Amino acid sequence: MEYQLLPMIGSPKELESLSEDQLTQLAAEIREALCEIVSDRPAHFASNLGVVELCLALHLTFDFSKDRLIWDTGHQIYPHKLITGRYPQFNTIRRKGGLMGYPNPEESEYDLFMTGHAGASVSTVLGLKAGDDLLTPEDNRKAVAVLGDGALPSGVVFEAFNNAAELNKDLLVILNDNEMGICPRVGGLANYLDKARVAPFYNGLKKDVSWLLNKVPMIGESAAEKVGQFKDAVKSFLHGGMLFEEMGFRYVGPVDGHDLRALRKAMEMVKEVKGPVLLHVFTEKGHGFKPASENPVKFHTPAPFCRDSEVGVVFQKKGSSPAYTDLVSDSLHTMMEKDKRVCVLTAAMCQGNKLDQIREDYPDRFFDTGICEGHAVAFAGGMAKAGMRPVVDIYSTFLQRSFDHIFQEVALQNLPVTFCLDRAGLCGPDGPTHHGVFDVSYMRVFPNISVMAPGDSLDIAPMLDFTMEHNGPASIRYPKTGAETVERTLAPIEYGKSEVLRWGEDGTFVAFGALFPACVAAADRLAKDGLDIGVVNARFLRPLDTEVIFKAIQETNFVITVEENTLCGGFGSTVLEAANDAGLNTSTIKRLGIPDEFIEHGERGELLADLGLDVAGLMATAHQMNSKHGSRNSDSIVA
Amino acid sequence: MEYQLLPMIGSPKELESLSEDQLTQLAAEIREALCEIVSDRPAHFASNLGVVELCLALHLTFDFSKDRLIWDTGHQIYPHKLITGRYPQFNTIRRKGGLMGYPNPEESEYDLFMTGHAGASVSTVLGLKAGDDLLTPEDNRKAVAVLGDGALPSGVVFEAFNNAAELNKDLLVILNDNEMGICPRVGGLANYLDKARVAPFYNGLKKDVSWLLNKVPMIGESAAEKVGQFKDAVKSFLHGGMLFEEMGFRYVGPVDGHDLRALRKAMEMVKEVKGPVLLHVFTEKGHGFKPASENPVKFHTPAPFCRDSEVGVVFQKKGSSPAYTDLVSDSLHTMMEKDKRVCVLTAAMCQGNKLDQIREDYPDRFFDTGICEGHAVAFAGGMAKAGMRPVVDIYSTFLQRSFDHIFQEVALQNLPVTFCLDRAGLCGPDGPTHHGVFDVSYMRVFPNISVMAPGDSLDIAPMLDFTMEHNGPASIRYPKTGAETVERTLAPIEYGKSEVLRWGEDGTFVAFGALFPACVAAADRLAKDGLDIGVVNARFLRPLDTEVIFKAIQETNFVITVEENTLCGGFGSTVLEAANDAGLNTSTIKRLGIPDEFIEHGERGELLADLGLDVAGLMATAHQMNSKHGSRNSDSIVA
Repeated sequence: MEYQLLPMIGSPKELESLSEDQLTQLAAEIREALCEIVSDRPAHFASNLGVVELCLALHLTFDFSKDRLIWDTGHQIYPHKLITGRYPQFNTIRRKGGLMGYPNPEESEYDLFMTGHAGASVSTVLGLKAGDDLLTPEDNRKAVAVLGDGALPSGVVFEAFNNAAELNKDLLVILNDNEMGICPRVGGLANYLDKARVAPFYNGLKKDVSWLLNKVPMIGESAAEKVGQFKDAVKSFLHGGMLFEEMGFRYVGPVDGHDLRALRKAMEMVKEVKGPVLLHVFTEKGHGFKPASENPVKFHTPAPFCRDSEVGVVFQKKGSSPAYTDLVSDSLHTMMEKDKRVCVLTAAMCQGNKLDQIREDYPDRFFDTGICEGHAVAFAGGMAKAGMRPVVDIYSTFLQRSFDHIFQEVALQNLPVTFCLDRAGLCGPDGPTHHGVFDVSYMRVFPNISVMAPGDSLDIAPMLDFTMEHNGPASIRYPKTGAETVERTLAPIEYGKSEVLRWGEDGTFVAFGALFPACVAAADRLAKDGLDIGVVNARFLRPLDTEVIFKAIQETNFVITVEENTLCGGFGSTVLEAANDAGLNTSTIKRLGIPDEFIEHGERGELLADLGLDVAGLMATAHQMNSKHGSRNSDSIVA
Repeated sequence: MEYQLLPMIGSPKELESLSEDQLTQLAAEIREALCEIVSDRPAHFASNLGVVELCLALHLTFDFSKDRLIWDTGHQIYPHKLITGRYPQFNTIRRKGGLMGYPNPEESEYDLFMTGHAGASVSTVLGLKAGDDLLTPEDNRKAVAVLGDGALPSGVVFEAFNNAAELNKDLLVILNDNEMGICPRVGGLANYLDKARVAPFYNGLKKDVSWLLNKVPMIGESAAEKVGQFKDAVKSFLHGGMLFEEMGFRYVGPVDGHDLRALRKAMEMVKEVKGPVLLHVFTEKGHGFKPASENPVKFHTPAPFCRDSEVGVVFQKKGSSPAYTDLVSDSLHTMMEKDKRVCVLTAAMCQGNKLDQIREDYPDRFFDTGICEGHAVAFAGGMAKAGMRPVVDIYSTFLQRSFDHIFQEVALQNLPVTFCLDRAGLCGPDGPTHHGVFDVSYMRVFPNISVMAPGDSLDIAPMLDFTMEHNGPASIRYPKTGAETVERTLAPIEYGKSEVLRWGEDGTFVAFGALFPACVAAADRLAKDGLDIGVVNARFLRPLDTEVIFKAIQETNFVITVEENTLCGGFGSTVLEAANDAGLNTSTIKRLGIPDEFIEHGERGELLADLGLDVAGLMATAHQMNSKHGSRNSDSIVA
């Protein structure tokens, strides 16, 4: 397809001059641009196809050079980027140095917040509106949040609804209801929204109300046994929005989210309504690209593919080494088979965490809470108290949402909940909202939690098995990458014990987690340079294997701690703390990890190299430490 | 009053044999026991007076030696403690070594979770039920959560409702609706519940439904303009529970929570209902003790008082030194007067944070979100983006609920939100759920946040002023205690600069926060022992004043870092990290702070002394460090 209109749209203001036919053409061009990108690299796809008309209607109705717009979560931001001046750079998206795959205020004034975690849009937009009303009331800026039905159950959404009703601000929340998160939605709210789909309301807004009113007398007169029937009738009459109305919002809709004219009409109407309004819009995830609309889960962030006129799409082949995620889910499956106490929880990441097989084989012991990480952890605490062995399988960055429940419902009770922190480390093209580089520091804040990381593929199964025998909370972190393997006679996992791959006379790498194989590779290559460097697979941060690590500090010339976590309070700091408490000289310790700044998006390998965490970087640090401390005198024990 | 029945109740099973009159007598004795305790020491009061009958009805209906019961938040646990075998120890409550003021599984099998933070009860009870159904289905254990209306808006409650509807477990949530949190409730849900109070439902459960059914035809036939009227009628018909029914719960109530017979009847009914049920109970906070029911805010945790037959109660006088909390709220008030951009947010802690005057004088710029810490922070992010200077005033321990929003909506955007972390440090008799001893470690995990603590009363106002000029997020922590003052010529607050009170030849205390005056006192007394110890008021953790601190490390014999925060990743660790990065010898550094364990309840002073953080403890550590390092050679710079 040739792009005729898209290159002309330098800003949303240029939409105004387009005819309805041209807008239809523009929508098609946007979808083509989405297909082009995603056939070239993994990127968010089906959700973007679903909001093309919604995005156009928003920019046609509002002026977001002053009005406020937040796309909740943000992975559906592509059409918005295309029509807010970023078409020329669009082919750089998700590439290092290129456009982000999420909103980014540094790219455009049309992106207000850098987001990636779900559910906070209503809060931020309410804050923007409250601030605008205080500072520039004369501008009468409008405020709009676009919230997916997948994000709706997030607790913070209800907290924001509760506050919005109190403040009674002119606030528009658009519920972009495509019947999905990444996976099909679950929970009471899902059932509630499903009913709205079949309600007579879903055609022409509320004009059918009088029809329904006439129906009511049919139900009967006074018999008490009719109560249930009447109640159901009233519910089906109003359920399109009763929940939201009860929360203090005006409810409008549902509207067909691919009917641009209907969308614009509805938005013009709600634009002038006073107080908080919820506009319910039905969209289809993957709309306009048949393979995607038929399989929106697969096409949420598909592997790169070629379009094929006969079979639809042909996916490019994936790499060969199984990812940590796969190995964890395989291990969990085995554990569930062996032990009836084991159950697995995810927060809407059944696909990302590769838990489909578990869901299929153990439906009674698999729990998908939806995007409700806080509840998932507190719920796991309850199950552990009842005697189960719950495994909470959530991305490192999203588990931040559960921080207080990790404290109160797990650590404080010392309950045997196992946290599997997927995407722990630099997660690649998703960027700073998705990098999992803080969990080591935050999991170790609370007492009682055993903090662990597998050094490679071989550690995973025994480490998970260990947590099932251990009588307390445990966390295990691993990155989004293929799991490397260090060939060796595997030392068994023992509480608080590291694994010494080998000792070296000159210095020691102490790796916590998946950079262990890189340390081994670096040590191998350093040997060719004449340096004899030992490698320790730390495995545990709490309890720390002080016996081995102190030996490395005292008996080798230097120690380099290696982690894929912030250096603020991470593994290296834990080593420093322990060594300091023991009165050891710590000046021969060098900590490598993520610096105290937010890390941009890019391939994990690229980013690790930039940070000196690839094999070459590890070697360079070893050489530096060797020049400083290579011939030190034996004054290492000071105290 | 003489206790006749209460001493006889060794376990809830003994309630069964009591007549209705005796139960009434028992309720009176429980209230007397509450009055006695609270007239002797600060303790939770009005909430406990309000649940006496509810507690009796629960234990009469269920068998919680096997059934599951969670009192949400937990400060209303006293009647439960009194009738579950803890009457003999009741006068030890909130005293070090005595009963906790919150549920404590170590005290009794009737307490399942140690709690203190609001809103997680539905999740944990659902987890317990899910676990029981898998492991011991034959026991048919019941599961009950008692949730206050103050806790209802917490996001995790809705997350749990959403999941409970999906799982369709037999779950009873009792909504203990007393129209209050600690302060009067706010938000859309508050309005919603207020309407239920005046609904015709509130008498005899649902028997009036037929009456209402008959009313409906009155509304008219078909006219479209009647829609609103009809809708309102339907709402007022059903609003007692429509919201909960829409979420997938059966709604029963409201029931008078002080009518034991009605309560028992309702509970017997809902006990056998399948699926999740919400039983709405109206109680009066402070019920049965007139001064408390007339002023439930004041009597939430009142100061000790004497009962007086004429004036009701006479409060004991408080200490004289103004608390940090008072000084902060006074400063905020002044700032709001000077700068229209300043606004203040609290999460239902208007009273605890002493913000009444601000609420009264600046209602447009004061926001109480209810117990919704996550929303409060995201909302503040929005306001900051709009140009405001929001101050988020939340207890250290409760701000944990906002961890992910501190990340995404504030730190990642680098927005000028100021966090005032009240109750940072050992908060005293509330115990481990309320000690704020983790915030230094968790606030420093994310980039961009300036992490600060005032050393004494004089630091507060200029430190807050500083954050208003600083272009990024900032956090300020201070404990729940009277603010001491170190007399001195105050150094101005400068970004990343500490204040050197004085240098000492022998060693240096580097204090981060409110233990600074204790360090000064210790140094003064050590001078009499012949030790010349300097004192640094660190003020900043990020950025750390490396110039001054490195000088102390290099030029004095030892450095003792002092903080009221966990030693895992806290201020002392930050000093170690920085010194290590600079290649300094850190073996002359000693870190003092909270050890890696949960700290029991007790007076702050008692607990600090136990941990060696009082003046005597600081002196002892200085003497130890002096014996080790007092005559060291000048090898401090190793690198």
